[in-house]
Amino acid sequence: MCSIKKDKLIIGGRTLNSRLFIGSGKFPSKSIIPSVIESSESEVITMALRRVDLDSKEHNILNFIPKGIQLLPNTSGARTAEEAIRIARLARAMGCGDWVKIEVVRDNKYLLPDNMETIKATEVLAKEGFVVLPYMSPDLMDAKRLVDAGAATVMPLGSPIGSNRGIRTEEMIKIIIDEINIPIIVDAGIGKPSEAAFAMEMGADAVLVNTAIATAQDPVIMGRAFGMAVEAGRLAYEAKLGRVLNRAEASSPLTGFLGDKI
Amino acid sequence: MCSIKKDKLIIGGRTLNSRLFIGSGKFPSKSIIPSVIESSESEVITMALRRVDLDSKEHNILNFIPKGIQLLPNTSGARTAEEAIRIARLARAMGCGDWVKIEVVRDNKYLLPDNMETIKATEVLAKEGFVVLPYMSPDLMDAKRLVDAGAATVMPLGSPIGSNRGIRTEEMIKIIIDEINIPIIVDAGIGKPSEAAFAMEMGADAVLVNTAIATAQDPVIMGRAFGMAVEAGRLAYEAKLGRVLNRAEASSPLTGFLGDKI
Amino acid sequence: MCSIKKDKLIIGGRTLNSRLFIGSGKFPSKSIIPSVIESSESEVITMALRRVDLDSKEHNILNFIPKGIQLLPNTSGARTAEEAIRIARLARAMGCGDWVKIEVVRDNKYLLPDNMETIKATEVLAKEGFVVLPYMSPDLMDAKRLVDAGAATVMPLGSPIGSNRGIRTEEMIKIIIDEINIPIIVDAGIGKPSEAAFAMEMGADAVLVNTAIATAQDPVIMGRAFGMAVEAGRLAYEAKLGRVLNRAEASSPLTGFLGDKI
Amino acid sequence: MCSIKKDKLIIGGRTLNSRLFIGSGKFPSKSIIPSVIESSESEVITMALRRVDLDSKEHNILNFIPKGIQLLPNTSGARTAEEAIRIARLARAMGCGDWVKIEVVRDNKYLLPDNMETIKATEVLAKEGFVVLPYMSPDLMDAKRLVDAGAATVMPLGSPIGSNRGIRTEEMIKIIIDEINIPIIVDAGIGKPSEAAFAMEMGADAVLVNTAIATAQDPVIMGRAFGMAVEAGRLAYEAKLGRVLNRAEASSPLTGFLGDKI
Repeated sequence: MCSIKKDKLIIGGRTLNSRLFIGSGKFPSKSIIPSVIESSESEVITMALRRVDLDSKEHNILNFIPKGIQLLPNTSGARTAEEAIRIARLARAMGCGDWVKIEVVRDNKYLLPDNMETIKATEVLAKEGFVVLPYMSPDLMDAKRLVDAGAATVMPLGSPIGSNRGIRTEEMIKIIIDEINIPIIVDAGIGKPSEAAFAMEMGADAVLVNTAIATAQDPVIMGRAFGMAVEAGRLAYEAKLGRVLNRAEASSPLTGFLGDKI
Repeated sequence: MCSIKKDKLIIGGRTLNSRLFIGSGKFPSKSIIPSVIESSESEVITMALRRVDLDSKEHNILNFIPKGIQLLPNTSGARTAEEAIRIARLARAMGCGDWVKIEVVRDNKYLLPDNMETIKATEVLAKEGFVVLPYMSPDLMDAKRLVDAGAATVMPLGSPIGSNRGIRTEEMIKIIIDEINIPIIVDAGIGKPSEAAFAMEMGADAVLVNTAIATAQDPVIMGRAFGMAVEAGRLAYEAKLGRVLNRAEASSPLTGFLGDKI
Repeated sequence: MCSIKKDKLIIGGRTLNSRLFIGSGKFPSKSIIPSVIESSESEVITMALRRVDLDSKEHNILNFIPKGIQLLPNTSGARTAEEAIRIARLARAMGCGDWVKIEVVRDNKYLLPDNMETIKATEVLAKEGFVVLPYMSPDLMDAKRLVDAGAATVMPLGSPIGSNRGIRTEEMIKIIIDEINIPIIVDAGIGKPSEAAFAMEMGADAVLVNTAIATAQDPVIMGRAFGMAVEAGRLAYEAKLGRVLNRAEASSPLTGFLGDKI
Repeated sequence: MCSIKKDKLIIGGRTLNSRLFIGSGKFPSKSIIPSVIESSESEVITMALRRVDLDSKEHNILNFIPKGIQLLPNTSGARTAEEAIRIARLARAMGCGDWVKIEVVRDNKYLLPDNMETIKATEVLAKEGFVVLPYMSPDLMDAKRLVDAGAATVMPLGSPIGSNRGIRTEEMIKIIIDEINIPIIVDAGIGKPSEAAFAMEMGADAVLVNTAIATAQDPVIMGRAFGMAVEAGRLAYEAKLGRVLNRAEASSPLTGFLGDKI
């Protein structure tokens, strides 16, 4: 799988130049979305199906997404596998394409995903030809089950959705990166560009960011910041970071200077 | 001082477009330095005076630094204020310009700076017209003394030189950023682009990176990664990051979807 | 459930004075175990059934456990719910009592538990009258399923077994503590007394420690250290910790002293 | 200095059984102090001289400190070495003994100590026969200067006074512990028993805690919690903690169980 991990990210047969996925919720106005897509250079945007209102030009989020951008409808609102499956099929029928991000959430406070239901939905939808990107609680055994169920990627969370708390599940995500051979996309909780860069340095294949961009004072500039940070983190991963020492190591000659040279 | 902190960084009357300073030590070969300057877009490079050997074309680091790049000779090797002052004057006499990074180190294991000697050297050299950038242990009272002594910036350390241990002095650096009104450059210990971005998000004005770039498997790409990360962190600081929550907050509508729409 | 959380810990109808559970593996010699039980004041000890060799006095771990200590046989070695169930039944038949710690592990590198199989085993064994303490990956939805399956406690991991890496899953464990109303026992990864105290300060009901005690240079003293740290953390939880500030707050009068008094 | 570091802590010729120092500020009532001394088993208590009002029984803190407890008057309120010296002499003249904790603070927001003034005061007072315990910003070179000036201990801060932010200067304190051969007492910022235990596990010789005990809902129980945590951390340091691994290591036999034994 090394060829997938290096160079370009390929998901569902599509080659992506950007490893930043963005969300479409929480923006002060939908009309800012095209500028954020441009500044961030993101090529994938997720949206809740409720926002796809075919009858209304103003309210239909699809009218704000430029051509060529990969739509990633999500099953937000689903509380069971069955509901997620139903939403996914509906999205495809409405012309949103084959990609779907599975979100099955039954916890109203922390909005944590239900892995078991997510695995069930993934299995059904992958068989129906969907490119399935499941949002998950970072658990290795469930990540393996998602691979077996036909997931195109796994999307472990960094911390609760919308919290901007960063990557608090580093230990588990590192293990998933070490053991799972489909693309790993860190989703939820990333609040700063430095955290997005850190995810990429660890070896994640992409990140999804919504709240941190949408609720920034200037979402367009913040989108650009995230786009650059994700690329920086990926470059660092490819250029191989040096070792961490317990003590210092001089960058410059420390002794003999004055005696020798002056 | 807000006008200095925003937009462009101005030090010693010079406007800098890049907020990444780099070092010249530890590279596998000096000949790679021009490519790293180009990829990182850095405009300031520090070097130990020992490396400035005017008689030798091959060994003289100055031959590897493109025109227009700001030289920042450092006093590496100095163990007292007097030695640092002597090296600074020599550097200027040799044509290296007015800028000087004060390094006074008497601790052989962790290579930590001696703030008291550094303050003395800063006071003397600032009066002689040098643009003085002192490397320091992150202490607020000593930072205030450096301001009083005429420092152009303060350069608190993140962790011991060359350790790649990251910003382990965050608590103290944040306080310095909050209280000191000359540019703050985080120097030493930064090992990853995400850490450089984090320093900028905190409100640092610039960072100096040497080991992490020079000892990467591919220093040119790593230089580019750091250049992008520093810019990303700065943009995020300017675009104002959102708040961090203790719980989740939905990006998408979570309830009512199925009932309302289907 | 407040009455369970406060004062005494009650599991399976048994009131426990100590909130430190210990393991029996990895000790330099089994003969040290009684001294560790005494120094740590632990009242619950877990052991792999393999170590229970009824035919051999020297090799049978039961001969090294004082009367009155609660045995907690574990299903170490089980790779499926069925195997765990079989081991649990065998342990009871051999006279090890009704308590069982479910461990179902199919991951050979990180030894992470398989929640789905663990839930299945818990359901069967709880119906058979076992007091079931399941070891789990820290996932809220699966913790809820374990409650529904009849678990007596949940035992989320801090980091991989035997790693001494500490509580790297703090974010998820805090959520479980917030949302689950049966005792929470943090198990695996705790490497230092300070980490055990931290788990208790967060509101965990108990911790299980094995490697950190068994592989210390002096396991008897280390057992005592953990016993005290667990009690300290619990007392702090009950005495209610103060708030954390972003700035300083004087403990002593800072101004006026010299003028007023001298 | 190993003999000092191990077993008992000796400062100024006095052998201390407890490694927890406490402060006397911020308690809801002075009358609770004797109970906190008893529950915490602390043998050293610091107080601002302002609180020593010889003419008033009710307001004089000395009336609330049991015999045998070591008084540690501090120079809180001093903004220069001269003021600190004056307060120390006054305290001795008032019968508070030879010990003095130097606090020189000129920063009104973060209340950070001024190392340079602290060193000057230490030098003068040590020559006058005081047992000098200087509160300091954690800087190795200044710690060396304090040793040279005759300090009995050094007291580096964990985070700003009264903040309960914990040990945020771990990197620098570890270096001081590694390099300085007089007792190291971590002072300021410790907010939880787990943090006190952590300081001791690192090799600190003692900790000073005030706010976290005094502002707890139940200061007497919190005092006990800190007393136990400090002892636990010290025992762990003496019993030598095990290594930290990057992967798991089984506590129990993982394979062969079912096949071999049943």
